[in-house]
Amino acid sequence: MTSRSFSEFIVEYSLTIDDFLKQALVARVTDENLRTVLTYSVLAPGKRLRPLLFLATLVELGCEITNEHVKVAGGIEIIHTYSLIHDDLPAMDNDDYRRGQLTSHKKFGEANAILAGDALLTMGINWLLVADLNSAEVVQSARVLTDAIGPNGMVGGQFIDIRSTNSDVDEETIEQLEYKKTAELIIAAVKMGTIFGQANEQQAQQLVKFATDFGQAFQIYDDLVDVTETATEAGKATEKDAAAGKNNYVTRFGIAGARKDLNQLVEQMRQDLSDFDGGVLLGFTNIFKKVLENDQKKS
Amino acid sequence: MTSRSFSEFIVEYSLTIDDFLKQALVARVTDENLRTVLTYSVLAPGKRLRPLLFLATLVELGCEITNEHVKVAGGIEIIHTYSLIHDDLPAMDNDDYRRGQLTSHKKFGEANAILAGDALLTMGINWLLVADLNSAEVVQSARVLTDAIGPNGMVGGQFIDIRSTNSDVDEETIEQLEYKKTAELIIAAVKMGTIFGQANEQQAQQLVKFATDFGQAFQIYDDLVDVTETATEAGKATEKDAAAGKNNYVTRFGIAGARKDLNQLVEQMRQDLSDFDGGVLLGFTNIFKKVLENDQKKS
Repeated sequence: MTSRSFSEFIVEYSLTIDDFLKQALVARVTDENLRTVLTYSVLAPGKRLRPLLFLATLVELGCEITNEHVKVAGGIEIIHTYSLIHDDLPAMDNDDYRRGQLTSHKKFGEANAILAGDALLTMGINWLLVADLNSAEVVQSARVLTDAIGPNGMVGGQFIDIRSTNSDVDEETIEQLEYKKTAELIIAAVKMGTIFGQANEQQAQQLVKFATDFGQAFQIYDDLVDVTETATEAGKATEKDAAAGKNNYVTRFGIAGARKDLNQLVEQMRQDLSDFDGGVLLGFTNIFKKVLENDQKKS
Repeated sequence: MTSRSFSEFIVEYSLTIDDFLKQALVARVTDENLRTVLTYSVLAPGKRLRPLLFLATLVELGCEITNEHVKVAGGIEIIHTYSLIHDDLPAMDNDDYRRGQLTSHKKFGEANAILAGDALLTMGINWLLVADLNSAEVVQSARVLTDAIGPNGMVGGQFIDIRSTNSDVDEETIEQLEYKKTAELIIAAVKMGTIFGQANEQQAQQLVKFATDFGQAFQIYDDLVDVTETATEAGKATEKDAAAGKNNYVTRFGIAGARKDLNQLVEQMRQDLSDFDGGVLLGFTNIFKKVLENDQKKS
């Protein structure tokens, strides 16, 4: 596939995912007030990166995308939304803005934000379970997903993050927490694609290698956004990590070092996908361009 | 089965569940600090009512209980624990004591309590998914479970509860929120038993009717505990509902009215189970005795 078809894929399926999310929240949340709280965060403009990676993996495996796959994709997205809502809470990172608008607890209060996260986490897994797909594959995918976001995955990463903020932690701990917080769900999305796309062992290995490199690249990207973009550009507060005493890739290796490693990872991802058409999945590395090319905003 | 075998069942499987929870938290949570936070709440003394109801349903259906069923039971219990931890948070009911000890946020701080709840919810579903049982039955059970605890179930109930506290809400709303908060997970536990126990349609209907009556009875029981027990007896603050401006069964119908309705429900449950041995499931109604017999502690 050419990079033109990557753009086509992104445009088509971003819309498909957003349409699904809109109608599913209406169809599947009976309480109007709760629906308002959930819709506010879920439909805020986002890249839909994780559900798109899931669907793109299916495309690379030559699998036709159905409404049932879109349901799973929607589930992955609202689980990501849950993690943002809970991470932003006053007891956690205490953020006022997210995706260019007030955070859930700023808009609806803390109790509603906690419950909104709980509801989205539960419903995200439920959407995978109600998808009309092969039962054994649903179970396998749901295991991968709940492993990735559980105490040894995403939640565990946030737990270490809270504990290590403003304390002197070693590099290994930082790498571990960033991997758990960010990479685990990205890798799970691709793994779920290999399950429903019935990848053979070698294909699955290569695609998971790509996802792992992408996950690491995305962490570096996110840390670079924190120092190279203004809050308006990023849709959330920036330059927070250093201020909050948080260690990340950029505070350790500098902007130049981070950019160099990110460039190397992009090259690595090209190699990971050499046995595939690769156009659609590789196209996701385009999002890193802005932090590789932009000038640093402050001297 | 006689009521003696009910006692035997409870003693045996309370221990089995507790043993499983203990070893599973060690085996399945790698971060030691997070494990400490989770273990504190999960292993606090509890009735293990929901997992026991699940296992008892299997017994009524003549199904032999295996380690894989115990895994599912453990998952149900830690999901209940998650709901207690989040309900107790300062932004919610702001409770200091639960199960006779400090609440999770009082002991470990708010951030850790929120994350502990998130971890237990995710891991509870995961334990069901990793149980080595028939895939189609696992998917069906996981659907039932996530429906029961999602936005139209338990979380939805807590949402309505928060919104309606100190406001003038109608009886239907109160009934709806109590049903969602308490009965839904109880009913789901029995439904999951009917799925893995391969109940036929009629059996499933009768057992779910029992569970629904039990769920309603348990709400009335819980409201009676709030006024008839001291905080030490209950292991948590009592007389909170009236003080917090919360409407419940007892504030509406009085203690005598609540006791009368609870007695009628126990009789109804006897009828629900007339086609079954019934000894094990019906034995669960024993827990209601203390609020039916005790004198009111204050005049």
